[in-house]
Amino acid sequence: MTADGRFSVYGKMTAKAGQRDELVARLADLLRLDTPGLEWCSVNATLEDPDTVWITEIWSDKATHDTETRSEAVVAATARLMELVAAPPEGCYGRVAHLHDVHAG
Amino acid sequence: MTADGRFSVYGKMTAKAGQRDELVARLADLLRLDTPGLEWCSVNATLEDPDTVWITEIWSDKATHDTETRSEAVVAATARLMELVAAPPEGCYGRVAHLHDVHAG
Repeated sequence: MTADGRFSVYGKMTAKAGQRDELVARLADLLRLDTPGLEWCSVNATLEDPDTVWITEIWSDKATHDTETRSEAVVAATARLMELVAAPPEGCYGRVAHLHDVHAG
Repeated sequence: MTADGRFSVYGKMTAKAGQRDELVARLADLLRLDTPGLEWCSVNATLEDPDTVWITEIWSDKATHDTETRSEAVVAATARLMELVAAPPEGCYGRVAHLHDVHAG
């Protein structure tokens, strides 16, 4: 995986009290869809706060992201996430400027 | 790379006006140090803002992060980053709860 042309998403979600583990499980369900173009994603449980999760997604390109996140399966899985969040998610979009991966060739 | 025991860092930096490309270059210099335990990092140029960068780092474990980020080389490279930022960086630490990597075995 290289940085060239790749599109990234940062998102931060706060679960309803006590619901973070279930929110992580539903994010894992979403990733199990193996959405075309979604090359990498980490789901991170914030250490400083018991209810917060942040994700970083790396996509092949923005156009694929825009198409695939409108698919019926992704929309349904996203709606299941939203049942568990205490507030609207925050986040931003990015261009991957540099990637470091010690496991890559 | 699996999620088990892995430690993650999210950081957001705002460059001084017009300095984002140079900030990205200095982040790339920092990654070229091949710091032990730093397995993966993306440097992302935020699309919505011309001066903002965010990074996600995945470390083998927190103890290695805590040790290695105190090394002379990392401290010096970090100081070179800080010359270019307009405000103190924001960020948080996390436990990697789930990882999705289509290029992994």
